[in-house]
Amino acid sequence: MKLRERFQTFMHNEALKKKLYIIIFESDTPLGKTFDVALMWCIILSILLVFVESMQGLPAVIKPFMVWAEYLFTAFFTIEYLTRLYCSPKPKEYALSFFGVVDLLATLPFYISWIFGGARYLMIIRTFRLIRVFRVFKLFSFLNEGNILLLSLILSSRKIMVFFLFVVIIVISIGTIMYMVEGDLPNSSFHNIPESIYWAIVTLTTVGYGDITPVTPLGQFLSAVVMLLGYTIMAVPTGIVSATMIKESGTSKVSDDNENLDDEIIEEMSNDIDTRTCPNCGRGGHDQEAVFCKYCGERL
Amino acid sequence: MKLRERFQTFMHNEALKKKLYIIIFESDTPLGKTFDVALMWCIILSILLVFVESMQGLPAVIKPFMVWAEYLFTAFFTIEYLTRLYCSPKPKEYALSFFGVVDLLATLPFYISWIFGGARYLMIIRTFRLIRVFRVFKLFSFLNEGNILLLSLILSSRKIMVFFLFVVIIVISIGTIMYMVEGDLPNSSFHNIPESIYWAIVTLTTVGYGDITPVTPLGQFLSAVVMLLGYTIMAVPTGIVSATMIKESGTSKVSDDNENLDDEIIEEMSNDIDTRTCPNCGRGGHDQEAVFCKYCGERL
Amino acid sequence: MKLRERFQTFMHNEALKKKLYIIIFESDTPLGKTFDVALMWCIILSILLVFVESMQGLPAVIKPFMVWAEYLFTAFFTIEYLTRLYCSPKPKEYALSFFGVVDLLATLPFYISWIFGGARYLMIIRTFRLIRVFRVFKLFSFLNEGNILLLSLILSSRKIMVFFLFVVIIVISIGTIMYMVEGDLPNSSFHNIPESIYWAIVTLTTVGYGDITPVTPLGQFLSAVVMLLGYTIMAVPTGIVSATMIKESGTSKVSDDNENLDDEIIEEMSNDIDTRTCPNCGRGGHDQEAVFCKYCGERL
Amino acid sequence: MKLRERFQTFMHNEALKKKLYIIIFESDTPLGKTFDVALMWCIILSILLVFVESMQGLPAVIKPFMVWAEYLFTAFFTIEYLTRLYCSPKPKEYALSFFGVVDLLATLPFYISWIFGGARYLMIIRTFRLIRVFRVFKLFSFLNEGNILLLSLILSSRKIMVFFLFVVIIVISIGTIMYMVEGDLPNSSFHNIPESIYWAIVTLTTVGYGDITPVTPLGQFLSAVVMLLGYTIMAVPTGIVSATMIKESGTSKVSDDNENLDDEIIEEMSNDIDTRTCPNCGRGGHDQEAVFCKYCGERL
Repeated sequence: MKLRERFQTFMHNEALKKKLYIIIFESDTPLGKTFDVALMWCIILSILLVFVESMQGLPAVIKPFMVWAEYLFTAFFTIEYLTRLYCSPKPKEYALSFFGVVDLLATLPFYISWIFGGARYLMIIRTFRLIRVFRVFKLFSFLNEGNILLLSLILSSRKIMVFFLFVVIIVISIGTIMYMVEGDLPNSSFHNIPESIYWAIVTLTTVGYGDITPVTPLGQFLSAVVMLLGYTIMAVPTGIVSATMIKESGTSKVSDDNENLDDEIIEEMSNDIDTRTCPNCGRGGHDQEAVFCKYCGERL
Repeated sequence: MKLRERFQTFMHNEALKKKLYIIIFESDTPLGKTFDVALMWCIILSILLVFVESMQGLPAVIKPFMVWAEYLFTAFFTIEYLTRLYCSPKPKEYALSFFGVVDLLATLPFYISWIFGGARYLMIIRTFRLIRVFRVFKLFSFLNEGNILLLSLILSSRKIMVFFLFVVIIVISIGTIMYMVEGDLPNSSFHNIPESIYWAIVTLTTVGYGDITPVTPLGQFLSAVVMLLGYTIMAVPTGIVSATMIKESGTSKVSDDNENLDDEIIEEMSNDIDTRTCPNCGRGGHDQEAVFCKYCGERL
Repeated sequence: MKLRERFQTFMHNEALKKKLYIIIFESDTPLGKTFDVALMWCIILSILLVFVESMQGLPAVIKPFMVWAEYLFTAFFTIEYLTRLYCSPKPKEYALSFFGVVDLLATLPFYISWIFGGARYLMIIRTFRLIRVFRVFKLFSFLNEGNILLLSLILSSRKIMVFFLFVVIIVISIGTIMYMVEGDLPNSSFHNIPESIYWAIVTLTTVGYGDITPVTPLGQFLSAVVMLLGYTIMAVPTGIVSATMIKESGTSKVSDDNENLDDEIIEEMSNDIDTRTCPNCGRGGHDQEAVFCKYCGERL
Repeated sequence: MKLRERFQTFMHNEALKKKLYIIIFESDTPLGKTFDVALMWCIILSILLVFVESMQGLPAVIKPFMVWAEYLFTAFFTIEYLTRLYCSPKPKEYALSFFGVVDLLATLPFYISWIFGGARYLMIIRTFRLIRVFRVFKLFSFLNEGNILLLSLILSSRKIMVFFLFVVIIVISIGTIMYMVEGDLPNSSFHNIPESIYWAIVTLTTVGYGDITPVTPLGQFLSAVVMLLGYTIMAVPTGIVSATMIKESGTSKVSDDNENLDDEIIEEMSNDIDTRTCPNCGRGGHDQEAVFCKYCGERL
């Protein structure tokens, strides 16, 4: 069939792919930049739309406009996702990358709620697409900071997990004890053990809603102990992360010398950082003279 | 008597002991692993059972099932404890070790509540048995992190105790002052000095339930001072623990070099760490080629 | 015209300018010191006046006095601002400096509320003038500490901004999920998504007002997760700032040696630090023998 | 007069003074130790008495016993104070030292309330006498830790004061803005600016009572900003104190090597530390072979 052939040609039109790729995946060209900024605005507007939709007492007259706006945004995001798949040199890698999954999830909830109803608010997953803001505005040094933060957290994660196991054991024990102490009172707000554990977490983390509070002297004494415990062990994750960050920042070159700081910041800001992303792994931040991706060795 | 003889033989059946020991105390063999995983599930299910029991408004039809489940779990834990005692080469050491005491306490509450009534919820002590999870899943490096955390806390404990004495003096003083300021008001929630001290702790630790709040301008001013104080002195335990951790992590080899991190993590994860525990002191984490316990010198 | 000539003479009366400059901008002379202390009191009193004005149920008899006091303070601040402009060698630089803008804003709200009504409470901007307290009381070492703090925050700002973007994404996601979980309940306090996001921030930051609380078990479970998350990621900004401060304090000379501390503090306190401010950039803290501003090279 | 002479002899009975001094001021002898422990118990009991007194609904039958107990404690503390004055080699120095003032204040409130009424609860000042517990139980190493903590805070105090000035400016500004936003609402809990500032402090310090909460979307948005601000700037005092402590602990010898830790702790605990206090300045912690006070040079 003619149609199938044309489709085949279209699917292998490398020149078109390349052109679209530069617009959609990069932001070095004016068109690419414009596209990325427009995309950011679409994401923000579609999030605000979800916010507004959730409000009660809206005038009935806006309703149809909002429905149409939703159709438009979803159509735009769907086309964008398909185009990304089309023009990506390695569509499978893109589809399975973090941004690829998020891009897909950003369009799905609408279709699901269209067919099955419900699940509409899951559109909020579009928020995650905002992480792209760093790439769009060439704020790679920020992404770098994010990587250091993430690395610190990952390096600390084992210590934090051990800490959490102990927190879980503590809150289960405390919650049960509090239920035994205050559970039988007629006006008690400790209705059962899971609720008491919820209270223990509220107290230990110093959140302190006040929806469940002890009323007996013994209960108040136990609460005070939990609070002081929470106040003290709060020091543990902070100490863990601080210690890791201090060591991290000692080895990173970025913030080593403080004297040239202003120059450094200015340079970083004005520096014409390359916005090319790797067609294979989708990661950015490559040097301008780079020919191969520094993460996976793929040709850029 | 014949029976007594058979019991004597059973009590000295070293081959059976060895076999059981490998199953119950270690998790290198498929059977040992299966046993440990089953044990973990029993612990988790018995904890959930306590949770469910505490809930009001359960259909009466479930009640008998829950009672039977409780019988079963307790029987299982009792048999397990007795078997551990039986097959441990040094039963006394095991019985007095941390895990030995916890294993005993995990079975007792049921019998106590059976005879005397009450105390049933103390079964929650089974939670502490979950610490074994690290051994079961060969996460010795995690236990190691736990040791570093514990060491940091122990090293900081004297400073933290001094800090606590001052916190106690502060909250007693503040609580009394607040009682003098707001205690005489008709709608006051500061009914007596202990309750005011409870309020002072709630405020100083930034928990802030809101069940007791000042209503006079002077009381609100004093509260604001307490809050700012609590906000600032929170820095003290954090500073203590951070300082200790930074020094600790400087001397520990585990996380010294960041470059080889990924290799290290992978190696640690995949490394076929030995799950044998010392029959004398009960500690694990021995190298595969080890013949003697590295903690107490006992033959493994 | 005669008047214009006299105005011209007045505007170029360098001797008068110099004299006023020493009184208003500096506090080395007794008159300069007296002026600065009087100014501080005026600022504090005018702030207290705004406080009192906001209270309901004041006796009607005080009203006129308060109006007159307001006139007086505004007149004083206006004249002071004009005099500062008049006697500053570089009026434009002063007018655009931080203190110049604050000095102007401290007088404007009254005139605006006089002409248009409202906006009267904006006079509270006078609070910012209190930062001058450090100069008046020769506490330059304090200002120095402030600079170190500020520098630490600026150096950490990129990391903190990345952290905030993630916090924003987290609270939007959590808020939406909570709205989906609890929004449909008849007695729900989660009325719409923005309110749920507000709740997520209240919980994540461990503030915990308790005006919006989950009532379903699932909602309470999610809340507990958010609390533990907030409790842990609180460590991130602290770790960032701590790491920066430790590095900063390592390079700063001020607090390098602890042995001579008492001497140092005494010396700093008693030291007759110069209160001259640069006529060009308005910054103080110059050495007594300094002839040129150490910041901009302007003659003092 | 005979009486006067006898009083004179008594006042100069150096042997008696010495004997009493060893009992009251030191705790090396069995009698001295017994006295100190008895004193601690008296302090704790008299504090508990104040607690109990503040409770409403006590049976009338206890009242007289409590009054008598109060008489007894006050008599004991008064006699103790006078004896301390009598047997101290330099009574004036003792009377003006921290402990001397606290010892006096611990007896005064009773007499004041006896003559003028009221002020009775100020007896709680006796709590401060508990700081002596470290001396009684020979926990000088703890006092040492306390000194390091105190030194860290003093070294950080200037930075913390600058931080507080900014916090004050922030809460005044935020409180005023919130009053402008929510003050006019009919059901507003922001009644006036001071109350709004109180709210701002409650929110910024993440205490979050919930007695005053915003109800408008704009107010909730502003609150969220304040919370995130408070969540972040909490890092500043922590960073300050951590940085100081890390530097401090780097220079202190006490906790320098971690290997010999257990030995060190044991040694410190068992070490027969001298409990002599300087008769001039009242400070303890002298070496056993010391002949002169290491703080003021007075002969011990």
